[in-house]
Amino acid sequence: MELVDKVLRGDEGSAARLISMIEEGRDEGYEAISLLFPYTGKAHVIGVTGAPGAGKSTIVDKLAISFGRQGGKVGIIAVDPTSAKGSGAFLGDRLRMRNAEKLEGVFIRSMAHRGFPGGIAKATLGAAYVLEGLGKDVILIESVGSGQTEIQISMICDSVVTVLTPDYGDEIQLMKAGLLEIGDIVVMNKTDRPGAVEAAKDIEFYLMSHKKQHWQIPVLTVEAIQGKGVEDLIAALKLHRTYTVENSQGSSKKKENIKRLVLAIFKEEFWGETLKKIQDKAMFDDIFQQLQNSTIDPYKAVRMVMDLALPTE
Amino acid sequence: MELVDKVLRGDEGSAARLISMIEEGRDEGYEAISLLFPYTGKAHVIGVTGAPGAGKSTIVDKLAISFGRQGGKVGIIAVDPTSAKGSGAFLGDRLRMRNAEKLEGVFIRSMAHRGFPGGIAKATLGAAYVLEGLGKDVILIESVGSGQTEIQISMICDSVVTVLTPDYGDEIQLMKAGLLEIGDIVVMNKTDRPGAVEAAKDIEFYLMSHKKQHWQIPVLTVEAIQGKGVEDLIAALKLHRTYTVENSQGSSKKKENIKRLVLAIFKEEFWGETLKKIQDKAMFDDIFQQLQNSTIDPYKAVRMVMDLALPTE
Repeated sequence: MELVDKVLRGDEGSAARLISMIEEGRDEGYEAISLLFPYTGKAHVIGVTGAPGAGKSTIVDKLAISFGRQGGKVGIIAVDPTSAKGSGAFLGDRLRMRNAEKLEGVFIRSMAHRGFPGGIAKATLGAAYVLEGLGKDVILIESVGSGQTEIQISMICDSVVTVLTPDYGDEIQLMKAGLLEIGDIVVMNKTDRPGAVEAAKDIEFYLMSHKKQHWQIPVLTVEAIQGKGVEDLIAALKLHRTYTVENSQGSSKKKENIKRLVLAIFKEEFWGETLKKIQDKAMFDDIFQQLQNSTIDPYKAVRMVMDLALPTE
Repeated sequence: MELVDKVLRGDEGSAARLISMIEEGRDEGYEAISLLFPYTGKAHVIGVTGAPGAGKSTIVDKLAISFGRQGGKVGIIAVDPTSAKGSGAFLGDRLRMRNAEKLEGVFIRSMAHRGFPGGIAKATLGAAYVLEGLGKDVILIESVGSGQTEIQISMICDSVVTVLTPDYGDEIQLMKAGLLEIGDIVVMNKTDRPGAVEAAKDIEFYLMSHKKQHWQIPVLTVEAIQGKGVEDLIAALKLHRTYTVENSQGSSKKKENIKRLVLAIFKEEFWGETLKKIQDKAMFDDIFQQLQNSTIDPYKAVRMVMDLALPTE
């Protein structure tokens, strides 16, 4: 396929076109991925996640610059799963701001939630393959950190960095449990603020007593805007990379992740098929009419729709 | 059913037990809801959402106290969908902190994600019915604000408050689009911080040019810890309540929401059934073996699982 050849030769325009094809759910896009697939699997795919305002974009930019200085070929995927509509322009703004920060030679792609067939994680997976086909050896994926979509996106990544700030207060308690699910490295950003060192120590102590297999999640203090701590973060990322490649538990986690992701994508597609089928049945509208008249409760409605969907035996 | 009678007579212990039954997905729990259902639909169910650290808990507590002073009977549901395991203790900590704040007479219930059959939104819906059965006329649901689960939880609510702080920086751009999806009222909290008034004005301007049907989303400035702006928030909530009850567009939105929620719950349950069925087939393991050997790419794996799930015609 000509498009694939062009991507493999490093043509950015072709890469952008191919990612759009995958976003639109076009068969040609998936055929192209099948052809690209044998050339992938060697790049370091890094997820950067955290709540809004934690400083993810700044960290991603600083990482891109530092990896670039060390000779890495860097690609960035900025994922925004929070809004269904109209966010294109906002992402556009963010990208323009980034370009102004002189991330020269870095291929940046935004992925907004536009009701992709199969969801945003499916398209992001494809975009990561395309960036690797393009010759990138470090791929940074930035996404807002909570909810099912983000957990799926973390499954695409070899290493996941969770960015926190001292502002989160007692909700850090809740996040600590989540970190063990998806994070490999914790960054406490904005360490110039009061309480940052204490908050970092607190999380470190928690993680020490809740070890994740053989990998001890490190907690790094960073002041991203000043670039402080970014080199330590890169060192930690490289260490984690070595762990995932050389350690059997690290590599089995990666295999488990890709299985979970395939099931998640399948779930969305299968749901689309199911909904199409049951919506055509006369009973479907009737159930919701009864619900809206309050003659049945929502749980009863669920059971009635279930009966509609399951094949009669 | 005796349990239902006890709940209707205001017995909190029975209410707690019934919510646990719904969490566990037990049939008795849903039967009880069918019996409670005719007694519901009159409480004002208010969702409070926003990123970690935005101050949701403080706002919920202040609202509970103020509604209580005005004679309202208040219940609180604290939802934590971010972590799958081990978060029970953390929620416990939060609740203890709350109790210390003297929310006397307020029934508080935490809902943590423990792989409920049908997801956390399903259990939260049931908890809201139980609280109303218990005699609460204001039900406050607090949840972390992004991802599919939170959108579902917002569908349970009559009014949704989105809490922002000036710290979010350019990510507020992204949130603005999301607000139109789920928020009815925007609160800019921590207005003692620099940039707060400007950020509030900025969002107000955006929302004025992106009107949501006939309801103009107000932007309120609040300093929750000091209690500043809480009375204005209550006034705005009451105004929105009137809108949803009296305006046909307001009430049709509510009906649409409950339909979407039923479909979301059905989706999770149907998925559970589907997965059980296809996992038993010999081909299922074979597909993932091929995926892990990299002889097929993930998209090919999705198509193969799909063929396995769809009935052959």
